[in-house]
Amino acid sequence: MSPVKVLLLGATGHTGRSILDGLTENGNYSIELFVRPSSVEKPAVKDLAQNGLPIRVGDLDGPVEDLVYLLSGFDLVISAIDALSQLAQITLAKAAKEAGVGRFIPCGFTIVCPPGCYAVARSGKTKEEVYQYLKELRLPFTIIDVGYWYQLSFPTLPSGRVDYATPLVPNVTIHNDGLATNLLTDLRDIGRFVARIATDNRTLNQYVYTYGDLLSEMEIFGMMEEISGEKIERRSVSTQEIESAMQRAQDAYSVDSKSMGNLFALYVAQYNYSKYVRCDNTPQGAEALGYLSARELYPEFQPTKFVDFLKEVLDGKGVNPYA
Amino acid sequence: MSPVKVLLLGATGHTGRSILDGLTENGNYSIELFVRPSSVEKPAVKDLAQNGLPIRVGDLDGPVEDLVYLLSGFDLVISAIDALSQLAQITLAKAAKEAGVGRFIPCGFTIVCPPGCYAVARSGKTKEEVYQYLKELRLPFTIIDVGYWYQLSFPTLPSGRVDYATPLVPNVTIHNDGLATNLLTDLRDIGRFVARIATDNRTLNQYVYTYGDLLSEMEIFGMMEEISGEKIERRSVSTQEIESAMQRAQDAYSVDSKSMGNLFALYVAQYNYSKYVRCDNTPQGAEALGYLSARELYPEFQPTKFVDFLKEVLDGKGVNPYA
Repeated sequence: MSPVKVLLLGATGHTGRSILDGLTENGNYSIELFVRPSSVEKPAVKDLAQNGLPIRVGDLDGPVEDLVYLLSGFDLVISAIDALSQLAQITLAKAAKEAGVGRFIPCGFTIVCPPGCYAVARSGKTKEEVYQYLKELRLPFTIIDVGYWYQLSFPTLPSGRVDYATPLVPNVTIHNDGLATNLLTDLRDIGRFVARIATDNRTLNQYVYTYGDLLSEMEIFGMMEEISGEKIERRSVSTQEIESAMQRAQDAYSVDSKSMGNLFALYVAQYNYSKYVRCDNTPQGAEALGYLSARELYPEFQPTKFVDFLKEVLDGKGVNPYA
Repeated sequence: MSPVKVLLLGATGHTGRSILDGLTENGNYSIELFVRPSSVEKPAVKDLAQNGLPIRVGDLDGPVEDLVYLLSGFDLVISAIDALSQLAQITLAKAAKEAGVGRFIPCGFTIVCPPGCYAVARSGKTKEEVYQYLKELRLPFTIIDVGYWYQLSFPTLPSGRVDYATPLVPNVTIHNDGLATNLLTDLRDIGRFVARIATDNRTLNQYVYTYGDLLSEMEIFGMMEEISGEKIERRSVSTQEIESAMQRAQDAYSVDSKSMGNLFALYVAQYNYSKYVRCDNTPQGAEALGYLSARELYPEFQPTKFVDFLKEVLDGKGVNPYA
C-alpha cells in the first residue's frame, strides 16, 4: 500500500502535535506540514523542518489559486488550526476542493455539543460555519471530536505536587453534584485516533467521537485521592452559579470582543455549562447527534487510561499544556 | 412483536397520506392521527375518522403540558406538517421529549440539499431550525428526504393527454443541458420507505434518502416520447436563466413575504437551482452529507419504476397531486 499523502496544518499546536505524532507512529502516512507565513520563523516550526519534515508555506489570505497548486496531490488535509483562525479554513477548504483532495478533516477536536446550540458554545459557531461550508462544497470530510483533554481534567492537591502540570491552580472545583460524566481523551491519544479514522471508509462524511475514559468529577477526585493519599478540599459550584458565570462571561465578551481573555473565559464558561449542566459531552450525547464511536470502530486500540495518566502526573512526568 | 404505537401529523397532505398508507400496509404499526383544531372539521379528516382511525386533537399553540399528555405512550411521532407550519414542530418536539417518545421523524421529505445552503433553499432554513432543535433536545430522530416526486417530474405532451395529471401545464422545460440526474420517488412509495426506516435501529439519529429512480430530464423526455409515440417540443432554460429566475423570485418574496404565491415560486426557483445547477439531489450529494441510502438498507423493497409510473399516467390512471 502506498502511503497516504497528508498535509497537516497546525502541527505546533497541542492537537496538531499529537496528530503529527500519531500519523508518524502509524507509519502509513507521508506527512507534510502546512505553515502560514506568520509562523515560518517560529522555533517550533524550524525544529520540525530540521527533523526532515517537508514544510509548505501557504497564505490563507492570499489567492486561492496558489493554495490549489500547493494542495494538489494530497489525499488528505487535516486542520488543527488555532481557535481564533477557524474561519480561515473556508479558503483552505475551497482550495482543497479545487485541488481534488480526497478528504478534509477540519478543526473539530472539541467537546461533543449540538450544532445549533450556540447559546452553549461560542467556539462551536465558527466551527459550524466551516462544517456547513464543507457540506455545501461537497468536499469529503470527517469531523472528529475528542471531548475534554485528560491534561485539563484533574484536580490539584493540597501539597502542591501536581501544580507543575496544571494550567490554572488551584483547581478543586466540583460542578453541580459532580456526577455528570464526560468524554475525556489523553492529548497524546488524539493523533492515534486520528491516524485510524482518517483513512477509514466508514468515517467518510461522518462525525466521530473519541475517548479514553468516561468519568465524573467525583470519580476523578476519588481516584486522585486514592493514588496520592491526600485529601482534596472540594469547592462546589451550583448549576445556578455555572449559569451566572456563563452570563457574566457573555456580558464581558459583548463589551469587549477583541479581548482574548474574554473570549477564552467565555469558552470555558460555556464548556462548563455544556459538560455539567446540559451533559452533552457523553456517548449518549454523541450518539444522539449521529456520531460514530471511535472506540467501537477500533476495539483493538487501547487508549491511555485516566488512572495511568494520573500516576504519571504524580510521578512528575506530566506536562502543562499551557506552560 | 407488539405493534409500534405511532402518532402521525399531516395525514391529509400528500406526503402524510402516503405515510399513512405505508404504515397501514406494513401491518406492524398501531396508528393514531394528530389533528390540529383548525383541521378537525375538514372532510378529509372526517373520512379518516370514519374509517376507524383514532384522532387526537392537539393545539400546537397551546400549553406544552397538554401536548405532553397527548403524546405519552407513543413510540414514534411522524410529522408531515404543511410547508408553512414547519416551526410549529418545535413545540411538538419539546412535548415529545417530555413524553418520552422513542423517535421523532420531522417533516423532511424534500430534496437533498446541504443544510447551510440557505441561498439555495428557503424552505430548508426552517426545516434546519427544527433539526437543530431536535439535536439540542437530544430527542432521538430520523430525517428522511425523498428527492422530487415522480408526480411532479414528467413533461406534458402536445396531444394534451397527460395534462389531467399535471399540476402546471405546459411543462416541457429542459434545464441547462438536461443531463443533471435527480433522485425521484413515487409519492406512493414514500410511506413504504418510511414504514421500513421508522423502526430500524440503523437509522436512529441519522439522515436517510430514498429514491425509486435516478433520472435526468433528457432520459425522462426520451422515455415519455418512446412510450407515447409523441414528439415533445423542448423549451431550454440556461443556467443563467435559472439563476436570474431565482433572483427575481427572491426579490418578489422580499417585497411581499406574506404572499403564498411568492413563497412557493421561490421554493420552485431554488429547487431548480439546487437540482439542475448545484446538482445536490443525487446519491453523491446525499452521501457527501452523510446520508444513509434507503435502497441499500432495504434491497428487498422494489419501489415503483419511473417508466411504470409514466405508463399509468398515459393509461389515464395518474393523479394530479394539486388538483
